[in-house]
Amino acid sequence: MGNILVSAHNSPHFFQVIKYWGKRDTGLILPTNDSLSVTLSQDILHSKTTISAAKEYTGDRLWLNGKEEDITKNKRMHNCFRETRALRKQLEEEAAQRNETLEPLSTYHVHVCSENNFPTAAGLASSASGLAALVFTLAKLFDLPNNMSELSRIARQGSGSACRSLFGGFVAWEMGSNADGSDSLAVQVAPETHWPELEALICVVSDAKKGTSSTEGMQHTVNTSPLLQHRIKEVVPARMAEMTKAIQNKDFQSFADLTMKDSNQFHAVCLDTTPPIFYLNDVSRAIIRIVTEYNNSSPDGKLKAAYTFDAGPNAVIYAPKENMREIIQLIAHYFPGSSDTYFVDHYKLFESTSDVRSNFKPANHTNFNENAIPVFPEGSVNRLLHTKTDDGPRVLGPEGSLLNEQGLPKRLA
Amino acid sequence: MGNILVSAHNSPHFFQVIKYWGKRDTGLILPTNDSLSVTLSQDILHSKTTISAAKEYTGDRLWLNGKEEDITKNKRMHNCFRETRALRKQLEEEAAQRNETLEPLSTYHVHVCSENNFPTAAGLASSASGLAALVFTLAKLFDLPNNMSELSRIARQGSGSACRSLFGGFVAWEMGSNADGSDSLAVQVAPETHWPELEALICVVSDAKKGTSSTEGMQHTVNTSPLLQHRIKEVVPARMAEMTKAIQNKDFQSFADLTMKDSNQFHAVCLDTTPPIFYLNDVSRAIIRIVTEYNNSSPDGKLKAAYTFDAGPNAVIYAPKENMREIIQLIAHYFPGSSDTYFVDHYKLFESTSDVRSNFKPANHTNFNENAIPVFPEGSVNRLLHTKTDDGPRVLGPEGSLLNEQGLPKRLA
Repeated sequence: MGNILVSAHNSPHFFQVIKYWGKRDTGLILPTNDSLSVTLSQDILHSKTTISAAKEYTGDRLWLNGKEEDITKNKRMHNCFRETRALRKQLEEEAAQRNETLEPLSTYHVHVCSENNFPTAAGLASSASGLAALVFTLAKLFDLPNNMSELSRIARQGSGSACRSLFGGFVAWEMGSNADGSDSLAVQVAPETHWPELEALICVVSDAKKGTSSTEGMQHTVNTSPLLQHRIKEVVPARMAEMTKAIQNKDFQSFADLTMKDSNQFHAVCLDTTPPIFYLNDVSRAIIRIVTEYNNSSPDGKLKAAYTFDAGPNAVIYAPKENMREIIQLIAHYFPGSSDTYFVDHYKLFESTSDVRSNFKPANHTNFNENAIPVFPEGSVNRLLHTKTDDGPRVLGPEGSLLNEQGLPKRLA
Repeated sequence: MGNILVSAHNSPHFFQVIKYWGKRDTGLILPTNDSLSVTLSQDILHSKTTISAAKEYTGDRLWLNGKEEDITKNKRMHNCFRETRALRKQLEEEAAQRNETLEPLSTYHVHVCSENNFPTAAGLASSASGLAALVFTLAKLFDLPNNMSELSRIARQGSGSACRSLFGGFVAWEMGSNADGSDSLAVQVAPETHWPELEALICVVSDAKKGTSSTEGMQHTVNTSPLLQHRIKEVVPARMAEMTKAIQNKDFQSFADLTMKDSNQFHAVCLDTTPPIFYLNDVSRAIIRIVTEYNNSSPDGKLKAAYTFDAGPNAVIYAPKENMREIIQLIAHYFPGSSDTYFVDHYKLFESTSDVRSNFKPANHTNFNENAIPVFPEGSVNRLLHTKTDDGPRVLGPEGSLLNEQGLPKRLA
């Protein structure tokens, strides 16, 4: 079969340090404010996508985590197909004008297969990364010459935050002002190599109930929160400028301060929504207290860590590499876990498991109010994932393909 | 002994429907915005205060809930003594000018005894009601001719919200604009007889840790929350006008809508504080969801209940009398309790205890998403207190006195 296969790999989640919350145009997915995220390493968590195109295919097909889904029902994915196919068609027409022949891939159906290396139930899978991977892989498949910012405009129409997911490092989504969305796209503020000392600890928090979807939630906030307008107009523009400067100067003090403030304000406008939207639960709140106490206990008064929460109870704690060992012990002290997957020491910070779980002594920290937080029951935090700033989507070799030569999932075949 | 005794009784807590949060002058206790509260019945919960003055007393003394406290350390109480004694002194001087004699009570020491009929641990005791009772009782003792609004200026200097506690019914604290605080006082928007159908259910929520004190917390918010300024300038003035109108018209729809929105916005600005202040816990959040679902299930689309939370996890649910039976069953379903004090059927709504605890069937409510909230472990809500709008401080007869003829607590004597 004359099919063409491209596979890519990307990071499944991107905790925002300046939060996206609200659309001014829900069709084109144009946001009410700029936002900024940090791309975390795909060494630990990743999504993998393979796309294959062939003349012989009789329809577009999609497999997500081993299960076939009805691709025609996915309007957001459809936007990405439509836009990338249009760009491919243009290339084909330009080639024809030069009397060259390009394979008419824009007319072929595609098979898409996408998998995560972590349980979806962990609440870390986001449609953003899936749609970014889709657009990236389609662009490779179609051999599009467009740069990442141009592609980000397409990914944005799949899922807003997806536009940022096309880059590694520190990425801004500039809201733009044009009604057609042509200037609403992502730009890299700094590459992943710029600030390698910045690391992150993802705390996967158990939560019984499924929260409000962010797509639905943010428009409720736009429609009902009196405070959101003030945030959009007065607060975020100044914070974006300060955050960009903090990243450029590798100034962890400003980065941490702004990150925590913006996380809190995002959850504040959720609470100011009618009816209120809650993403933080008692475990999330306890993580905030722990980080606050940890910062209060800093001998020189400098911030040592910063928490942030997207639209869910899971925390990311950003910190300089030198504090990460202590932070892991701190979290493991208050949120004990004993499963094999609780903490995998990917970066070899500890000599043994007991080293992780029993070495934090709050009394060693001046001003650490040990009793501000109770020790939680085992399992309140499911997993601790230690990761760092890293690159964006990667193209994989044929050995990484999820589809076989017939264009069917290898795992199911 | 020639002592003079006055006793009074008042409601221990006053859930605000437009929230006070922030001082523009911490010395004079001048707020950053107007606020409005509903005085709840003292039939169920109350504080009682007796004050005695005698020439023979050698110093001011204070007993709180049976324990003597050092009155000289209480600056707020001291403000109330100073101001009421000054007014008494003026009366004595005016009498002297008329060649009349008034007992020089302004020069006598006083003994103060105050008790609550509920455990302090319930988190419902507030310094506001204590200081309101103090000022009210002192005014009676000194036979001051000043009206309640004038006295409220004094009570305000004891504890901000205390100014509202001098009235029954629906009470506004007008922030005023004078630098000396002379126009920052309470006025009654409507008496308790105006809207007798409005009832309330206080849900006393268990909470392991003590939250941030409101005195401390509100100034952190003033100093660090970018959203608070918008609330103060743009949101509260309009809400006060609408809330006043809603109360005057006995319009439960507007009252409920504004009450819930203002509670949420108050907690939102707490969350926008650095570090963030949390008063709502997972139980509080679940109560919000239950009331939201209950309102969603309303057959005619009308709001049937409204929640509000002050600076703590305890909820007050306001509702028309006709819905209260259903609401108690609803809360008792999700937050079971079996202790004798869990629910006392003061208003005889139920025939038996089992009637309270097993009669709510969410399935009877169209659109009630029963699974939005889990049934919580017993004891998550300690007590349900059914109460209603009622009057302000009452003078008690000699049989209600907490002090004996020697001016010592009867209970300790």
